Order: sequence, then structure tokens, then C-alpha cells
Amino acid sequence: MEDETPVRNHVFVLVSGGTIVSVTDAAPAGFDGERIDGRGKVLLPGLINCHTHLPMTVLRGYADDFDLQTWLNKYIFPVEAKLDGRCVRAGALLGIAEAVASGTTSFTDMYYFCDDILSAVEESGVKANISRGTSLFTDDFSFDTHVGCTEMRRLHRDWHGRDTGRIRIEASIHAEYTSNPKLWSAVAEFAAANGLGMHVHLSETRKEHQDCIAKYGMSPAAVLDRSGVWNTRAVAAHCVCVSDADMELLAARGVSVAHNPVSNLKLASGIAPVPALMGKGINVALGTDSVASNNNHDLFEEIKTAALIHKGVSGDPRAVSALTALRLATVNGARAQGRDFECGRIAPGMDADLILLDFDRPHLVPCHNVVSNLVYSARGSDVVLTMVRGRILYRDGEFLTIDLEAVKRELDEYVLPKLFG
Amino acid sequence: MEDETPVRNHVFVLVSGGTIVSVTDAAPAGFDGERIDGRGKVLLPGLINCHTHLPMTVLRGYADDFDLQTWLNKYIFPVEAKLDGRCVRAGALLGIAEAVASGTTSFTDMYYFCDDILSAVEESGVKANISRGTSLFTDDFSFDTHVGCTEMRRLHRDWHGRDTGRIRIEASIHAEYTSNPKLWSAVAEFAAANGLGMHVHLSETRKEHQDCIAKYGMSPAAVLDRSGVWNTRAVAAHCVCVSDADMELLAARGVSVAHNPVSNLKLASGIAPVPALMGKGINVALGTDSVASNNNHDLFEEIKTAALIHKGVSGDPRAVSALTALRLATVNGARAQGRDFECGRIAPGMDADLILLDFDRPHLVPCHNVVSNLVYSARGSDVVLTMVRGRILYRDGEFLTIDLEAVKRELDEYVLPKLFG
Repeated sequence: MEDETPVRNHVFVLVSGGTIVSVTDAAPAGFDGERIDGRGKVLLPGLINCHTHLPMTVLRGYADDFDLQTWLNKYIFPVEAKLDGRCVRAGALLGIAEAVASGTTSFTDMYYFCDDILSAVEESGVKANISRGTSLFTDDFSFDTHVGCTEMRRLHRDWHGRDTGRIRIEASIHAEYTSNPKLWSAVAEFAAANGLGMHVHLSETRKEHQDCIAKYGMSPAAVLDRSGVWNTRAVAAHCVCVSDADMELLAARGVSVAHNPVSNLKLASGIAPVPALMGKGINVALGTDSVASNNNHDLFEEIKTAALIHKGVSGDPRAVSALTALRLATVNGARAQGRDFECGRIAPGMDADLILLDFDRPHLVPCHNVVSNLVYSARGSDVVLTMVRGRILYRDGEFLTIDLEAVKRELDEYVLPKLFG
Repeated sequence: MEDETPVRNHVFVLVSGGTIVSVTDAAPAGFDGERIDGRGKVLLPGLINCHTHLPMTVLRGYADDFDLQTWLNKYIFPVEAKLDGRCVRAGALLGIAEAVASGTTSFTDMYYFCDDILSAVEESGVKANISRGTSLFTDDFSFDTHVGCTEMRRLHRDWHGRDTGRIRIEASIHAEYTSNPKLWSAVAEFAAANGLGMHVHLSETRKEHQDCIAKYGMSPAAVLDRSGVWNTRAVAAHCVCVSDADMELLAARGVSVAHNPVSNLKLASGIAPVPALMGKGINVALGTDSVASNNNHDLFEEIKTAALIHKGVSGDPRAVSALTALRLATVNGARAQGRDFECGRIAPGMDADLILLDFDRPHLVPCHNVVSNLVYSARGSDVVLTMVRGRILYRDGEFLTIDLEAVKRELDEYVLPKLFG
């Protein structure tokens, strides 16, 4: 994906021990392993979803078309208050299933009941950077007694690096407006001391951005920087309302931005200035956000929306090219996750995180340009195989690691009655 | 679809002779006809695509991410100059196949070589309003010798009303900027004299709109009105740049607007003011435009984009609700086509133009709200059955009226070598 012409035809990708060993024109002499026939298909690095809240999959379609405060206060928060670990695990498995079936191989997720999310991640075989979102509404704070911080520390001890790094724990501050500098400094120190990534909602709405300036005389990006929040590899989700100075700061700190175009449109937050962010040298990746504001985990839809929306609002049809949009969900996603050494590209030495799309369908015919068809014509449902580290998780409609029927039963028999009964 | 609660559960829809006879809670006593099991599925009126150029399906992905003039002059027009009827027929069949597989049952199309498009429409079993786009770049004009006008007249004579109205011919002026008042008056008179619909590109770009004002001292909507173009049922495609006065004029004339959000974004034309158009009482329908600027015929994608984009640019999450977005592609589409007496709703007396979506897929679970899942979570690939007038055109991946393999062979052996060889 890093060349100007990233498409290669008729290649043989040799995978062994979960890793891509070689990419050659034909099978090596004497090769007698299992073969997956790619004729009529397109092989792509697995897609990387850099901002999700997987357990909220159980809230799909529960509340739409409300203003943000009504949506949160009247619908989302009251139901979230009823969640337990069992609901979270079922929601995470359902969200992972949906995402794997549409080509996602790695997530960056922020939520709570993280042990239950991690159990779903471990079992399903996907990659994930998982964080426990933290908030603080008082001045009374100690890292050692704060429920989110202590969970973060325990998750780091119990889960970080599990399965030779397939699972990683990150630090997280939910957002500037849901906490204060005491929490920020402590979480920033914890992340820096342990070499952890950081996951934060940043300037998702104009109101949030302006309220912060009114309160601190500084933007969310700047005030969090003062507490050292960006002193580690970090993902700032949304960045719909950021100033030039914010962008320069994020660029200087090496912060990646997770762009969530569908969610930002659906919640009427607006459109992140992606061409400007990239122009400042910021690494921009893609996220779906939760399906409560999307309402699916199909990154192909997110890729197309990212390619379209910036053209439409700028008047420049070259604002975000098809290839750039595809990079957001692959190479850039891997970099945002701190996994660029292991995934996001098809190259020797990389993990075999691969997806295969069936291009022999009427909406993908003719194929003048593979990248164009991937970005503008394909859908997540064109994915016919999803593999993480050489292990097939999904193939031709079948899930090999998730018992989808059991998940649906759990929804019907436990989750939905508990939340909505 | 016209009630506040348009969703009914567990119904039996009796179809006979291509028509919906009844919609009841259960099968009538003694019914022993063929049954289609809808458990776990959602039945919807077939979707209506009110602005397409079906034959351009052969250009899918051929040229993207260029400014409009480069795109047209360097890429699209030179290839279109090589088209013949055989290419057009193959492109139309491919476009129809793709659209039928994603739930479209009726098209409003504008192109040329219309006999070949009509032959594809007739054979495939879909509904269509077909028009021959006309243009005029000189002052020398006679309806009786103008190639487009004479074709229009002949198409009307040979095809209009074919198969008891499944196929209709409409009049068409390609656009204000590609012709002049001599053509407009003549085509308007022909349409009015024959009771035909009218299909026009209108104010797709700011440049087109401003150039017209500079030339005529009037907007495209107003200058075409002066020639009587809106004196019949008409579809104005795009309307990205329209003034309040234009909207009032279109409303007064009963003109329907075909909104093409994906194409308008992709070509960087902008975003049509749909909430304002609807606020003026204008009937707004949906179109994909050609796949050269989309790049597919999936109306579910268009529905979702319409629901999202107006929220994002207005800051109002209620700008276009899910139900409104669904109406654009069903009831409103039928009205734009002059077919509201026959399709767009599931009701006794309507044609059985019906589609069935499989809702037992992970990205459609849970289903708190059928309309929400249809608009925000579904994709065209969730369609498992498409029926026009009771005839099944597509079911579970199989095309019952189109030989897709033959179409693909025709593309490979004739169309692509001719156009790009």
C-alpha cells in the first residue's frame, strides 16, 4: 500500500506460523501446503477499526435522530446503567462477528467491563487494543481508589501482551469534558511509565470545544497536552472541531486521529477537517464509533464515506483520493495502533492479517481499477475470508471462532430482557 | 409507508396476477398457492432509482477523483464517443442486474441508444421510465430533423406503455447548459402534447447555475420554466444549487427533485438542500446517477447517505429522519415516476413490486427498530428476493431473467475491447 501503484496481479502469498513469509509471482518449487484460490478475488490487508465501543452493539437502532444530549441522557446512559459483564461480552462478540465478516481484523476499543470484552477478543481471534475509559467529576481523586484507574492497572497486569501481543491494553481518558486535570496527569503518567498507548475522545462537537475554551482558556487538545496526555502514542477520536494550532500540536506530538465520518454525520457533529489534518502531517485512521451512532461496523462504508465527504464539502474532487481512503483503514490504522511493524500491509515479515473479497459480483464488474472498485463500489459483504495471523476467523458466511447462534440466544434470553424488558 | 408507524409484523401479502390483492394477518382460509416464507425477513416495496444512466455501468471505476471538466472531457466523453448499441445493451443489463440484486425494481433513466436500453429493460422484467437525453449547440433547429428529438418521437411511438405500462417513455432535455430555448420549447410542447414525463439535469453545480444567470439573467429553473419545460410531470436531477425562488417555482410546478447525494459528493458538486426542498413541499426522490460517479447502484447506500449528510451539514440530527430517507426511495420515487397509483407501497391494488431482506445477519441484530436497521445498518446485499409485478427477478444470488454470465462474456469479448482496447 505504500507505493504509488500498490496493486499487484497474480501473486502467491506464502503464510507460515501466522506470518507472511514471501510474496512472489508463483508458489515456491515444492510447495505442498494448503492453498486458497484467489482467482476472481482481491487480497487486502485486514482493515483496522481505530475507534469503537464494541459492547454497544446491543443498542443498534435503539435510538436515532435525536440531538446529542437527548440521545445520551434519555436513551443511551439509562440503558448503559443496566449493563453487566454478561451483556458486554455478548455485545462484544456480536460486534466482532459483524466486523470480522466485513473484513476487520483489529480494533481500538474504549469501554468498561473490559475483562468481558477481552474474553470475547481472546476467544474470537481478532487483534485489539482495549482501554477502560475513565472519567472524574469531583476534585477528590486518587489513582489507587479510582474505579477506572484501578481497573486500567489490573487490565494492564492481567492482559497486556496476551497471545504474543495480539491483545494490548491502552490507557484512556474518556474526554476532556468528562474529567479534570487530576485524572489527566495521573493517567498520562501511568501510560508513560508503562509504555502504553492512549485513547481519548477529542473535540467531537463544537460545544465541547468551546466549553473547554471558556473553562480553561485553552482548547481540549492544548489543555490535555499541559497534563502530558500526548506524551505517548495516542489516538484522538473525532477531532471535528480543531484549530490550526490544535492540528500543529497534535502533529508535533505524533498523535493519530481516528476519523469517524458516519458517526459524526449521524450525530450532526459535523465533518472533521481530514485534508487539513493530513496536510499537517497527522496520521489519520478510521473508526466506526459504536453502532449506536453508525449503525454498523462496516469499514468499507466508512472508507467510502471518507473518500466522498471531503470532496463534497471542499469542492475538490481530489480532496481524499480512493487510495488515501484505503490507507486510512490499513497502513494508517496499523500506525495508530502501534502495530505498523506487524500489520496494515501485505509484505514478508508481517502478520498474516488478510482478507479476501469476491470481485466476481455484478456491482464489481467491470474492474478498470482495483482500488476504485474497493473504495467506491465494494461493500463489507464482498468479504469472503478473514484471517488473523494465518488463522481463518470467517469464510463464506461461516464463523470459525464465534458461535453466532449462541450469541443470538444470549441476546434474546438474557441481554435484551435485562436491558429493555 | 404513509403512516407514522409503517411497520407491520407477521402479515400475509396475497399476490395474484402481478397485483397485491390483500394484506392480512394470516393467509385466507383455503389458500393453497405458492408461499414465500418471510420469517426473519423484512418485506419492503421495491426501491425506485429516479436518476440513472444505466449503460455507463461499463465505465465503473474508469476515472475517479478528477475535477468535473477533466473527468468529462478527458475521460467520459471520449469513451462515450466509441459506444454503440451493443455496448449500451450490455451495460444496461449489467446495471439492471446489480440494481435488482440490491432491491431496485424501477428506474428513471436518461441516455441514448435507447432501443438497446429498452430491450434490456423489457427482457429483465424491471420497470422503467426511459428518456433520450437531448442537447443542441446551434441556433439551427427543427424537431423533425434533430437526432434526439426524432428518436424521442420514435421511442414514444414504438415503446411507450409496453407491457401494460411497465415501460414508459419520457421526454428529456439533458440540461440548460447543453442546449437552448429552441430545443426547450419544442421538447416541452412534445411532452405536453403526449402527456409524457420530463427528465432534466438541473443546477448540478454552482458554475452551471451562475453561468446561466450570467447568460440569461435567470436561473436554470426559471429559464426552463419560461419555455414551458415544467408544464408536465417532471424530474429535475440534482438541484444542488437552487435559490429560494427556484424552490418555490419547482414546488408550484409540481416538479420532483431526484437527489443524488453520493454522486454530488464524489464529483465535489456539493449537497442539495433537501430539508429546504421538502420544506417547500417539493417531492424529493433518490437517484444513484451513473456508476461512473458513484460507483454502484445500491440504493440502500443512497438512502443512508441521504439520512446522514443533511444531519452533518445542518447540525440538526433530525434533518432527514430514517423514515423520511426510506420514503425518498419508495413512495416519493413512485410519485416522481408518475407511478404512485401502482407502486412504492405495500397495499391492495398496487403492483407486487416487492423486495425481501434477510434480517438474520449479525449487522442487523438486534432489531430494536426495523426502519432504523433498514436505513442505517442494512446494505443492498441483504436483499434476498426481488419481484416486479409478482415475477421474481432475483432470488438468493440467482438472476431469473438475466444471463449474467453471458453479459460478462459480452463485456470481455466485445465491449471492453471496443472501448478500451
